Amino acid sequence: MANLKDIGVSAAINLLSAFAFLVVFAILRIQPVNDRVYFPKWYRKGVRSSPTHSGTFANKFVNLDLRTYLRFLNWMPDALKMPESELVDHAGLDSVAYLRIYLLGLKIFVPLAILAFVVLVPINWTGKTLEHATNVSFSDIDKLSISNIPAGSKRLYAHTIMSYVFTLWAFYVLRNEYKMIADMRLRFLASQNRRPDQFTVLVRNIPPDPDESVSEHVQHFFCVNHPDHYLTHQTGFWGLWGTRVDAIDYYTAEINKLTEEENAEREKVISDANSIIPAAFVSFKSRWGAAVCAQTQQSRNPTIWLTNWAPEPRDIFWDNLSIPYVELTIRRLVMAVSLFALIFFFMIPIAFVQSLANIEGIQKVLPFLKPLIDFGFVKSFIQGFLPGIALKIFLILLPLILMTMSKIEGFTSLSSLEKRSAGKYYLFILVNVFLGSIVTGTALQQLNTFLNEPPTEIPKTFGVSIPMKATFFITYTMVDGWAGIAAEIIRLVPLVIFHLKNTFLVKTDQDRDEAMDPGYLRFATNEPRIQFYILLGLVYAPVTPILLPFIIVFFAFSYVVFRHQVINVYDQIYESGAAFWPDVHRRIIINLIISQLLLMGLLSTRKADKSTPLLILLPVITIWFHVYCKGRFEPAFVTFPLQEAMVKDTLERATEPNLNLRTYLQDAYVHPVFKGIQEQNPPAVEEEEDSSPLVATKRRNWNASKNESDASSKAGSGTGQ
Amino acid sequence: MANLKDIGVSAAINLLSAFAFLVVFAILRIQPVNDRVYFPKWYRKGVRSSPTHSGTFANKFVNLDLRTYLRFLNWMPDALKMPESELVDHAGLDSVAYLRIYLLGLKIFVPLAILAFVVLVPINWTGKTLEHATNVSFSDIDKLSISNIPAGSKRLYAHTIMSYVFTLWAFYVLRNEYKMIADMRLRFLASQNRRPDQFTVLVRNIPPDPDESVSEHVQHFFCVNHPDHYLTHQTGFWGLWGTRVDAIDYYTAEINKLTEEENAEREKVISDANSIIPAAFVSFKSRWGAAVCAQTQQSRNPTIWLTNWAPEPRDIFWDNLSIPYVELTIRRLVMAVSLFALIFFFMIPIAFVQSLANIEGIQKVLPFLKPLIDFGFVKSFIQGFLPGIALKIFLILLPLILMTMSKIEGFTSLSSLEKRSAGKYYLFILVNVFLGSIVTGTALQQLNTFLNEPPTEIPKTFGVSIPMKATFFITYTMVDGWAGIAAEIIRLVPLVIFHLKNTFLVKTDQDRDEAMDPGYLRFATNEPRIQFYILLGLVYAPVTPILLPFIIVFFAFSYVVFRHQVINVYDQIYESGAAFWPDVHRRIIINLIISQLLLMGLLSTRKADKSTPLLILLPVITIWFHVYCKGRFEPAFVTFPLQEAMVKDTLERATEPNLNLRTYLQDAYVHPVFKGIQEQNPPAVEEEEDSSPLVATKRRNWNASKNESDASSKAGSGTGQ
Repeated sequence: MANLKDIGVSAAINLLSAFAFLVVFAILRIQPVNDRVYFPKWYRKGVRSSPTHSGTFANKFVNLDLRTYLRFLNWMPDALKMPESELVDHAGLDSVAYLRIYLLGLKIFVPLAILAFVVLVPINWTGKTLEHATNVSFSDIDKLSISNIPAGSKRLYAHTIMSYVFTLWAFYVLRNEYKMIADMRLRFLASQNRRPDQFTVLVRNIPPDPDESVSEHVQHFFCVNHPDHYLTHQTGFWGLWGTRVDAIDYYTAEINKLTEEENAEREKVISDANSIIPAAFVSFKSRWGAAVCAQTQQSRNPTIWLTNWAPEPRDIFWDNLSIPYVELTIRRLVMAVSLFALIFFFMIPIAFVQSLANIEGIQKVLPFLKPLIDFGFVKSFIQGFLPGIALKIFLILLPLILMTMSKIEGFTSLSSLEKRSAGKYYLFILVNVFLGSIVTGTALQQLNTFLNEPPTEIPKTFGVSIPMKATFFITYTMVDGWAGIAAEIIRLVPLVIFHLKNTFLVKTDQDRDEAMDPGYLRFATNEPRIQFYILLGLVYAPVTPILLPFIIVFFAFSYVVFRHQVINVYDQIYESGAAFWPDVHRRIIINLIISQLLLMGLLSTRKADKSTPLLILLPVITIWFHVYCKGRFEPAFVTFPLQEAMVKDTLERATEPNLNLRTYLQDAYVHPVFKGIQEQNPPAVEEEEDSSPLVATKRRNWNASKNESDASSKAGSGTGQ
Repeated sequence: MANLKDIGVSAAINLLSAFAFLVVFAILRIQPVNDRVYFPKWYRKGVRSSPTHSGTFANKFVNLDLRTYLRFLNWMPDALKMPESELVDHAGLDSVAYLRIYLLGLKIFVPLAILAFVVLVPINWTGKTLEHATNVSFSDIDKLSISNIPAGSKRLYAHTIMSYVFTLWAFYVLRNEYKMIADMRLRFLASQNRRPDQFTVLVRNIPPDPDESVSEHVQHFFCVNHPDHYLTHQTGFWGLWGTRVDAIDYYTAEINKLTEEENAEREKVISDANSIIPAAFVSFKSRWGAAVCAQTQQSRNPTIWLTNWAPEPRDIFWDNLSIPYVELTIRRLVMAVSLFALIFFFMIPIAFVQSLANIEGIQKVLPFLKPLIDFGFVKSFIQGFLPGIALKIFLILLPLILMTMSKIEGFTSLSSLEKRSAGKYYLFILVNVFLGSIVTGTALQQLNTFLNEPPTEIPKTFGVSIPMKATFFITYTMVDGWAGIAAEIIRLVPLVIFHLKNTFLVKTDQDRDEAMDPGYLRFATNEPRIQFYILLGLVYAPVTPILLPFIIVFFAFSYVVFRHQVINVYDQIYESGAAFWPDVHRRIIINLIISQLLLMGLLSTRKADKSTPLLILLPVITIWFHVYCKGRFEPAFVTFPLQEAMVKDTLERATEPNLNLRTYLQDAYVHPVFKGIQEQNPPAVEEEEDSSPLVATKRRNWNASKNESDASSKAGSGTGQ
């Protein structure tokens, strides 16, 4: 077991290597040749142009100004300087809310750490159990932990009381944060300029009508049921996906090679009634009308004429717009079962692959390789590397697998897809990393334990081994957390790929723009990892407080790094207005409850019979706190209050009495493929241009779409006015 | 253990006694003197007058027409004769939907019984395990049950397969019934005449405003946010409850002894701003407007300006209209903890009372009673009776306790209070009657078992004793179920009380009307009992099918008896339009899952290792079925589709262009106390008059309220126009 000195050495090494990463980053980022790798967001915004066009030839590639090297850590204060309100304008509310998760971690754990070091560490240190124990191996870390308290000691009351203090502090911080984010969201939505999604409702599961086309049916239904508010609508096209996509490749269109066949294909799709899917974007004359339609039930059959707020145009996941109700429920059932299987049985196929990939197996299947394999180096490489590589590949592919599962579940916006994937990934990490590390076994073995042990024994089983795993998790935090963040900022893969592309492929300025890969804030994989560290902190705060400083360093370091990335690098794919916060909050609550149950299990094994029952109340009030917060704040993330809508509508009517909304909304919700017709040479845009790796859409400002409205009204025969 | 013959004898005795009850009922009901006990509903409807006014003196009290005695069971076909649509008009949709729960039981269990007797009974009978066993006591019933199958036999596949068949059949019936009830509800709502609650929304948690009264604040808010639809509103009064209620006793007013002081008190309440609670009934110009407001969020703070459909006026529970959000969540937390304590620890205070109530205890506390207690008969009475009476009193008070708990939880309508109480009572029966009988122990001991046994062991523990408890539950069904229903129809308590009142108190016709106690359909206590029998049937269908006929008799008998009571006796307190059906459905789903888990436990102890895993899928698809049904049908019970509202509005505008809605809605939602002012002599009403034992309200038709509108507009200064 590692003692304090070992941990200190390890921490020093990790800190040094992280520092080395930072130095490398600091040097790389000020080289002009890397400018597009480390500042792509500013290029996308159009406020930065290549530094390669000015100065001497050498200056184009290498920074020769030595003074800049002396200020090499300046990016850190720079990253913190931009005020939050400005950051919202610059990168959107999603990014700001995401950064606040790290801040939230600091707000929870800094006071917890101070309290724990002032109160619990002295109590543990003077417990003196381990000094008398001779047959047990122990370390200095254990002396600072609850393991040093004799079983049945009255000192354990301190841990019980501190557990209440920690929980109440977490409540206080969580509630304030939820309120803050909810206010920010409402302010953000209120302060936004006119946007098509404020007036538009996504209608799905439109029932077929024998006498009318989908478009006519939509028009008649809403003219009847929202007579004072209905304005116009746009219907979705079916034929765009599947085999035909290749034929009408959007990217081909973009590089001005649109052929006659493609046009013909598009015409065919537009004129073919079967290719229109039973979904529509229905726009209203006012925000109030849209808010009403989005929040109410339209038809007596609650599975048809489903209305929801339309996601903003670039957030739509077009493939899922039309899934019948029964199919949707079956898809979700199948995916729930699959997720369970994935979490608990993922080791089975990997073990199978590993067993195939041993030397004997390879020799049997491919006997001609025998001479090569017998070669010493190759043999040891295969034996040492192959078994691990299957697992590694799986773990790299995991976020992709989870995202695919979420897509199958049928969500209609990219933001909801990311939210769902994050939930799945959190479960995976919780079971396979956290619980798996504590009891050291596969999830399958744990499942067996869960089923065959009494419910009261399970927290005990985990509780007993928690103090023993503290050093492991400290090391894990340093290697996975600290080093992961340091690697994040260097952007090694985009760096290499950009330079390869730049050297071999780039011919025009436009090519160079496309060679940039700013990436985006990967909420679906990053947020569950933060949750894992929050869980670690909550579990170890009353048990082994020495772990807390490592967590705090992780949060602080991450905050600075990601703030830098958000300001300079990441490109926003969509803006959901921090719609993910209820999920973040709920998972922290789950972490709290897990930590409370584990502490109960731990204390009950230390014969603290009198103090353990006092803990039973904790999960109950935690659940109550969750219910309270859910009712108080969650509606701000799912509904849109009529009062707000009315205020904006009234204001708009007063300031712009002659606004032609119909023209404005004309082709806001047209599938990106059809936008291609009018946008072969995109007009000068004032706002940033966004490109999504999943669905390429273009967001444009009002002037742009106004100019094109004549052309698009001819093309968009599916839009029924 | 009872054998088939014992059960047969017991069944014969119970059938005979039930039959005797029926004969007594048949004789009692045709006596003119009992007419108001057995046909109160018709009196309340005003279509039946006392038979005592005609004929000879003897004829007034005793039926001397012998022919009617010969047709004494005629009430049964009579009860079944009235078509369902007529019954909806006569007694409301709530009653009809309630009766359909019994029908649902028959639809599920008659085919199940036939299948089980054709397939499972022969398989069990020829199992021949018990014939060879010599050291185990067994009965004929066990020979027909799964106990007769040797452990590990392939015959157990039959039970697994039948379990799937049973579940799928239950799905089929449940889905059809849900659809049917949802359709009936929508048709019912659509076919109703104009009613105040169609236009009205209950607004709670109105924030205080320093410059405006509550009434002005409401008016301004809705004028701004629903400008095209807002019509008028009425606010709630606070001062009516608590100490002042006695001073303004409604019933005193009704018997024309209204005093000057009461009037003064009323005026004081009306003019006192502090007595106005922050809740209002806001009415709209159209059903569409009300539907929109009820389904949307009004303010950015989701805990103020809460809007819900107004319950119909007589369904309102006035006391709970104004509870702040935080207080509400705390109340619900406290009640959840209390319910848990009530279910699992209720035996502790009862055991304490019982220990006090023994002979030695009484002698100690009250030594002067010693001579009396020493008297033989008194001693045996105390010893035999006192310990049981504490439990009996508790069980009689239980529904009242649960209803009080629901009231503390803060629900605003009588119908929702009954729904919540039913849920609590179901949990109590499930834990203390069903599970308690199977493992024979208090709920506390069960809780201990649950906590200290592995989750996989729990279904086994219960599963093993299930076949052994079959005879107990058969007896229970006959004694509690059959006899309970027979007692229901005789109405012994109302019969005695009516005759006592009639003899000593009744002086006028109005007195006699008030002496009638028609009672009402007690959903909160009756529905959980039905659920218990459904649970019994589902659990025993694959295990001991011989139990099913007893359940079927219970359902059939109950259906006839309650249909008779609904037609002739019960008075409706409120009409919720079968809003309780989602609860009924959900509890049947829970029953299904419990029965599946218990069967898995049972089969795993019979070494059916191959067939048990096949059952794991059953709970999964059952949960999926629930999710499917919830999404498909539940919205019909909580929202009101805009399409329907628009159809009715349009129709009304066409047929009654000059309707003055404001006058119609003027005082629809006035607290009953204030209605007293204008209604000392209620005008002739065409509809039935309803009186509630909890909140006395009067529902009146449009003409009646129109006539009074002038008077009420003067009195109702709290209504803000």
